[in-house]
Amino acid sequence: MANPVLPSTGVLSPLGLDAVRLAPGFWGDRVTLDREVTIAHCREWMEREGWIDNFRGRRPRRGREFSDSEIYKLLEGMAWAGHPDLPELAETVARAQEGDGYLNTRWSGNRYTDLEWGHELYCYGHLIQAGVARLRTHGEDRLTEVAIRAADHVCRRFMDTTETCGHPEIEMALVELYRATGTDRYLEMARRFVERRGLPALGPIHFGRAYFQDDVPVRQAKVFGGHAVRALYLACGVVDVAVETGDQELLKAVEAQWERTIARRTHVTGGMGSRHADESFGEDYELPPDRAYAETCASIASIMLAHRLLLATGDARYADMTERTLYNMLATGLALDGKSFFYANPLHVRVPAEPPQGVVSHAEQVGLRSPWFDVSCCPNNIARTLASLPAYVATADAGGVQIHHFTPGEIRHGGLALQMETGYPWSGGVTVRVLADGRGRISLRVPSWATGATLSRACAPDGSGASGAAGAPPAGAGRSPAAVPVAPGYAVAEGEWRAGDEIRLELPMAPRWTFPDRRVDALRGTVTVERGPLVYCAESVGDEPPLADLAARVTTPPADVPADRPGDEVVELEIAAVRAAPDANGWPYRAEQDRPGGTGGGTDTVLRLVPYHRWGNRGPATMRVWLPVAGERP
Amino acid sequence: MANPVLPSTGVLSPLGLDAVRLAPGFWGDRVTLDREVTIAHCREWMEREGWIDNFRGRRPRRGREFSDSEIYKLLEGMAWAGHPDLPELAETVARAQEGDGYLNTRWSGNRYTDLEWGHELYCYGHLIQAGVARLRTHGEDRLTEVAIRAADHVCRRFMDTTETCGHPEIEMALVELYRATGTDRYLEMARRFVERRGLPALGPIHFGRAYFQDDVPVRQAKVFGGHAVRALYLACGVVDVAVETGDQELLKAVEAQWERTIARRTHVTGGMGSRHADESFGEDYELPPDRAYAETCASIASIMLAHRLLLATGDARYADMTERTLYNMLATGLALDGKSFFYANPLHVRVPAEPPQGVVSHAEQVGLRSPWFDVSCCPNNIARTLASLPAYVATADAGGVQIHHFTPGEIRHGGLALQMETGYPWSGGVTVRVLADGRGRISLRVPSWATGATLSRACAPDGSGASGAAGAPPAGAGRSPAAVPVAPGYAVAEGEWRAGDEIRLELPMAPRWTFPDRRVDALRGTVTVERGPLVYCAESVGDEPPLADLAARVTTPPADVPADRPGDEVVELEIAAVRAAPDANGWPYRAEQDRPGGTGGGTDTVLRLVPYHRWGNRGPATMRVWLPVAGERP
Repeated sequence: MANPVLPSTGVLSPLGLDAVRLAPGFWGDRVTLDREVTIAHCREWMEREGWIDNFRGRRPRRGREFSDSEIYKLLEGMAWAGHPDLPELAETVARAQEGDGYLNTRWSGNRYTDLEWGHELYCYGHLIQAGVARLRTHGEDRLTEVAIRAADHVCRRFMDTTETCGHPEIEMALVELYRATGTDRYLEMARRFVERRGLPALGPIHFGRAYFQDDVPVRQAKVFGGHAVRALYLACGVVDVAVETGDQELLKAVEAQWERTIARRTHVTGGMGSRHADESFGEDYELPPDRAYAETCASIASIMLAHRLLLATGDARYADMTERTLYNMLATGLALDGKSFFYANPLHVRVPAEPPQGVVSHAEQVGLRSPWFDVSCCPNNIARTLASLPAYVATADAGGVQIHHFTPGEIRHGGLALQMETGYPWSGGVTVRVLADGRGRISLRVPSWATGATLSRACAPDGSGASGAAGAPPAGAGRSPAAVPVAPGYAVAEGEWRAGDEIRLELPMAPRWTFPDRRVDALRGTVTVERGPLVYCAESVGDEPPLADLAARVTTPPADVPADRPGDEVVELEIAAVRAAPDANGWPYRAEQDRPGGTGGGTDTVLRLVPYHRWGNRGPATMRVWLPVAGERP
Repeated sequence: MANPVLPSTGVLSPLGLDAVRLAPGFWGDRVTLDREVTIAHCREWMEREGWIDNFRGRRPRRGREFSDSEIYKLLEGMAWAGHPDLPELAETVARAQEGDGYLNTRWSGNRYTDLEWGHELYCYGHLIQAGVARLRTHGEDRLTEVAIRAADHVCRRFMDTTETCGHPEIEMALVELYRATGTDRYLEMARRFVERRGLPALGPIHFGRAYFQDDVPVRQAKVFGGHAVRALYLACGVVDVAVETGDQELLKAVEAQWERTIARRTHVTGGMGSRHADESFGEDYELPPDRAYAETCASIASIMLAHRLLLATGDARYADMTERTLYNMLATGLALDGKSFFYANPLHVRVPAEPPQGVVSHAEQVGLRSPWFDVSCCPNNIARTLASLPAYVATADAGGVQIHHFTPGEIRHGGLALQMETGYPWSGGVTVRVLADGRGRISLRVPSWATGATLSRACAPDGSGASGAAGAPPAGAGRSPAAVPVAPGYAVAEGEWRAGDEIRLELPMAPRWTFPDRRVDALRGTVTVERGPLVYCAESVGDEPPLADLAARVTTPPADVPADRPGDEVVELEIAAVRAAPDANGWPYRAEQDRPGGTGGGTDTVLRLVPYHRWGNRGPATMRVWLPVAGERP
């Protein structure tokens, strides 16, 4: 079961890389790009920057205090991808491990002297996840041995203390190692790390204890707060501990925190973490589009968390959020060439960025993707996530399989062998073809935005053999070649299947205006456009036309237009807009309301929108996801 | 001439503490509070935190690398206030000075090894400003001697290098010492520091060279950028150098930078610097109310700069901005008890703050004033600024005096002795009474918001002696006891004066709605209220009513209401508002526009507004300067 998360219990069981194979398409192409380009790119930069040399004992040591973890994230990606460089890189790591299992190139002479900022347990966490990936794709070897020795060292050193790490990550790694090996102490160690946190377990820091979730015990927290990646990695570990220990109270606590975070602290792209200063969640409804930090790694953590909650509960809203985050954050983080990355993902960029030169400070990156950062968690995190992406597509339960994400490919589980064909997310049709006779329930997720979706079922050409129901209500509706309406959630088809039978889901793909809740102050008076799972944005290469002068006329619906580039299946959009005359400068607070398109005047024009994940691939540009709503004609 | 800025040339000459005396009133009370409470409070905390002990050689050294400068800022305040503790504190500082004039408790063994972050020249800058203050209020003594030795050391060490300091401040200090002593090399050293910057003169840092204004030579910069205090202190020094060297090009460059900054990078409160991450200016129109950093020290620097530009040019817009910043930033920075301070000054606080405990991290402070910070520039900066505040009130030229700020008090210069009486900023009448026979032009600033202001002139009771013109047009209007309209700028009265003659300026004090320019994205769809020079805000103690649910009905004008507290002359306001029903939680991006008061419904209510500078004095509260504009009734 080649899977990054494999709970021993829960409503749904994940299908792994051995059960799901992606064919070329939106995600299949990216998984291939990752395997063929991105993984090697990361490896090269970490050699160049000396982060791998740190394991070879070269001095002075280079990179930040947590740079070991980057090699581990990449090793995890290599494990999922079956990359041939893994054994040699693992051997380099293995040689740096000390006799008692300790392994860290920064703190070796000075172990655990700065748990707040040292990241030693965080680094082990990624090492252990890499080890688990290797164990599940290949079996025991040097890397799994190193990971297990490190885990055993951690248990010996920390089982009976009150300490923990300033950066959560070890928790979910230890639970997964417990799942992979059956060794109880890993679960117990993870449970203790979770329960200790917030008592508090760490010393005070400049940013305050909320930064690393040590201000309140996790059971008592009401919402995710502090450093976004830390908060979300911790929540993953908490779900894992809750599931394995049967702790429903703990699971419910995280579900409630997630729900409030989605309602009040999440950007429309799925991005989380609105503040630059400490890479943290802001207060409720603090969601600035321009200064949205929305770190790529936080979105990956959000995907990891929503996936765990989906497995535990079977609730489609978790898969909905995973989809939103995959298409609008993960896909945005990586350039089309596979070699440059966004660290922060703002939803509004006012000034075209300068092309990056060499290693970029993650604090500086804004409007163009960079090949590498001083802190390069995001590239390696993208590498490992894309390498394991097939494991997020489908799950199973006793009755059959659930397809959560639509991509060309094949799914095989139990008595079912299925082929999925789709042009998603550009078109809304999804065909699931049965490849071999079998039986079982086949569920397809109907996204929450997909009002008006239909499901139909067609039997194999000889017209016999298939039986059961398609669409809602799921049972008793009889055989029906006609499309039946299906509500958001899961559309279910069940019965006996013959090779050649087909299920077809049709999702409505008309672009739609989306407005913010009145409490999202930074977005008041704006609108964006979504189409299927994609958020769109206006991108203006060289800022011509100047985006600051444009407002959307929401009285005319947005319309599909084919992309300009031949061979590119991207769907772009056009909307009616008003272009204000550039204003004179001067004190910007005045006695009159200023709203182009209404009393503020302006000229009518048409504005092209592109999928948000595509922006920044055409050179320095301005961009905005949320456009001002034009005033009504006076 | 007891004055912090005393240019040898320029359109206007400042009147100093020896020429302007404040009587009880808005500012007079605060100057007294500073002298009697705030200065001692700062001294006590710096003893408690060990920052003064650093000069006594106690080890380990305590405080940040720039903590010496805090003692110097306080010494400057003590000098202006004539505080009796000055000699003893100056002696403590003097004993730490090395034989060649070097003086720094942090870098003593390691001089100038980190010019980017070391702050050594920055510390000297504040020491020299303290020395100049002492020279002008008392004459030579131990403190002035220490400052001059330090300045001489700086000239020897840096005159012929290409180096400068990561934090500007030394530039304006050296020019002022040149003005106070006539020693040319101080001016030349300042000039070289200004010209070196941006070539670049410093090494690269994490935040990028723009952070400390080393990305571009100051003559080429188009707007203030990077760390706000650094940018504004530098600009002060540049104006000083330009004025003393007669460099009109350099002066024009700063004027243009100031103009663009006011038009695009300044909050309605006069606050500057919108970003927390690096305490910097954001991009043009990046002016979030909730995450406005708007550091108190940046506002002080802005006042220092605008004052310099006023002296150089005589343009009333600089005094207008000083007034805005004085009433809405400086007055906000200090609590009514004189013992706690805002570091950042947001314009929107969503969650009532926890009361501060002990020393507060400046990175954490938001919604309540704190008695002290780990970085405590703001308290000491307020202390020195209030102590020298009378020097900002009035200026002189060959023809007479100009009154820029309205406060009870007396002004004596040349042939004029004037008493000012006013209830400003609560009421709009300003009476200037002539105390002794004399002659000369008396100009009163008419603020840019004061459309409909009038000026009148009344002769002494015996009805003889006074002659000349009141109001605009300034000359030839004849004697007129009636009020004449005066336009924003300066209203001028001139002629012979007899004791008892009076000039009366009436400024319109009706509260007024103020709307943001459409390009200030974070304020779209909102409105605030101003009255006279004051910006108002809604403050909700304990967040009841919840401010997030309230919107302003701009169709009903705001109205004055007397404050609840007896004996308090504060004018509060009431506006018509709509209170939305609390919404259900859920994904906050939807197909419908959400605007209370219009199609969004809501109940009509009345909302009390308080002057922004008063907020946060009544315990944990929410606050917003900018309120959503309610939708039109459907």
